[in-house]
Amino acid sequence: MSLLVVGSIAFDDIESPSGSRENLLGGSATHFSLAASSFAPVQLVGAVGEDFPMELTEGWGPRGINTAGVEVIEGGKTFRWSGRYEGDMNAAETLKTELNVLGTFDPKVPPKFRGSEFVFLANTHPGTQRKVLEQMTNPRFVLADTMNLWIENEREALLDLLKDIDALLLNDEEARMLSGKRNLIAAGQAILDLGPKVVIVKKGEHGSFLFSTYQFFALPAYPLETVVDPTGAGDSFAGGLMGSLSRGRAVTIGNIKRGMIYGTVTASFAVQDFGCEGISAVDASAAEARYEEFLQFVSL
Amino acid sequence: MSLLVVGSIAFDDIESPSGSRENLLGGSATHFSLAASSFAPVQLVGAVGEDFPMELTEGWGPRGINTAGVEVIEGGKTFRWSGRYEGDMNAAETLKTELNVLGTFDPKVPPKFRGSEFVFLANTHPGTQRKVLEQMTNPRFVLADTMNLWIENEREALLDLLKDIDALLLNDEEARMLSGKRNLIAAGQAILDLGPKVVIVKKGEHGSFLFSTYQFFALPAYPLETVVDPTGAGDSFAGGLMGSLSRGRAVTIGNIKRGMIYGTVTASFAVQDFGCEGISAVDASAAEARYEEFLQFVSL
Repeated sequence: MSLLVVGSIAFDDIESPSGSRENLLGGSATHFSLAASSFAPVQLVGAVGEDFPMELTEGWGPRGINTAGVEVIEGGKTFRWSGRYEGDMNAAETLKTELNVLGTFDPKVPPKFRGSEFVFLANTHPGTQRKVLEQMTNPRFVLADTMNLWIENEREALLDLLKDIDALLLNDEEARMLSGKRNLIAAGQAILDLGPKVVIVKKGEHGSFLFSTYQFFALPAYPLETVVDPTGAGDSFAGGLMGSLSRGRAVTIGNIKRGMIYGTVTASFAVQDFGCEGISAVDASAAEARYEEFLQFVSL
Repeated sequence: MSLLVVGSIAFDDIESPSGSRENLLGGSATHFSLAASSFAPVQLVGAVGEDFPMELTEGWGPRGINTAGVEVIEGGKTFRWSGRYEGDMNAAETLKTELNVLGTFDPKVPPKFRGSEFVFLANTHPGTQRKVLEQMTNPRFVLADTMNLWIENEREALLDLLKDIDALLLNDEEARMLSGKRNLIAAGQAILDLGPKVVIVKKGEHGSFLFSTYQFFALPAYPLETVVDPTGAGDSFAGGLMGSLSRGRAVTIGNIKRGMIYGTVTASFAVQDFGCEGISAVDASAAEARYEEFLQFVSL
């Protein structure tokens, strides 16, 4: 089955207790695609500026990432983000954001991608996410990400989107903000009532929760003694989840749960190095090995 | 098999978002005994003052809690604690502590209790915990709790104790403090090197971790939409763990893991009402039912 992602491609400058790096390849669609491509081919839709060296994506084709949907915006500059992690590294402090081409991003899904059955709407304005959805002819399982900015400032557009997606992925603070409930169990239940059939709450080092009708599932994070750079962990989680789910499997709660484990192990690789370096080193067999290891950590 | 606990019996005044209560029956040994007695008989060693109305313990005998080790200190007053929970309720703010008889507590294990095979050394001075241990003739599995005060001020005595117990139970902040490591996985591993064969780290709403040689196990908390009073949750967890483990089962990592689930569900009952009211309402069949339910939350 086919998998499509629409999201950002970026240059990141990162400071973490492990060091500082500049001009790292980043962005939600990048992290997602690299993560998902361990499991299944990916169709990528995004935008970069004229400054973007396309040779950075040379390894993507062999990994099964189709970049035919990456638009180079004439006269534009690529999205840049810089952030810092301190202490328990559960949240980034944004030092600088230069939206550049992302500020006017109007995603056009190439005709040959429009039949994709699995769709990940990475974090962008919910109105932009809806525009993508409207271009898809055969969506079977649509997962969307979001963030505090849209929950606060674009609530109506977000609530509108929630009625038409299958699953929402968000972190614990976003779940509290969206639902208005401090208790996370109550928050997850309340978000289900807003439309999605599945709500997945990411809790960083504390793992993840799944909420669905008559279903609750809890998963710890993969145990790591050192986290180098958490940037893109959530998108890598989404990549492992959607990549494993799209490789010819039926969409069932059982397979979504297994997908969450693939997401968990994929994210664990991602945070072990800067930028995309951790996730780029993973292939299917490395992911399967860590999946098996993880099962031992949660099995009686 | 036989199970002994040595710890405090107290009166608690509690303020939480759910309300305020005064003169609640509390204390580590109380919470532990009530929790464990859903699974196995318990021998309780502790001290109260002359002000303690023994009729408060009337229901204990029928539950299988042997209070022959409860010493009434002549002229003494019972330990009193008052605390407040706010926000996410993960930590109590202590408003007042009156040690009273606990200040000079010198536990004497009655001769008929000294052969107990399972021993829970609830949180007291590590020197006092050692004195209890020295009175036991046949300890097979000794679990100890501790707290920040002893880690900071009585480190030598605590390190000494750790060499002679089987398992240590502590919360995430205590694990970081004891090990000097901020990462919890690294902290748990480091504490193993201090002597215990098993280290169990309680993370409140985020569940618990088990560390042992070549073993790691992670468990989420039982999902609750409302927490009324977290007082005694840790001791109730210990009670469910040790109670289930002592009911004639071999001490194996598999049974300790299952014990952690019993601890998790027992603690979940405990926090649903003030003081001991939540845990007092539980019996073996209620615990088994929630155990089965919990398994669904963590199973593929």
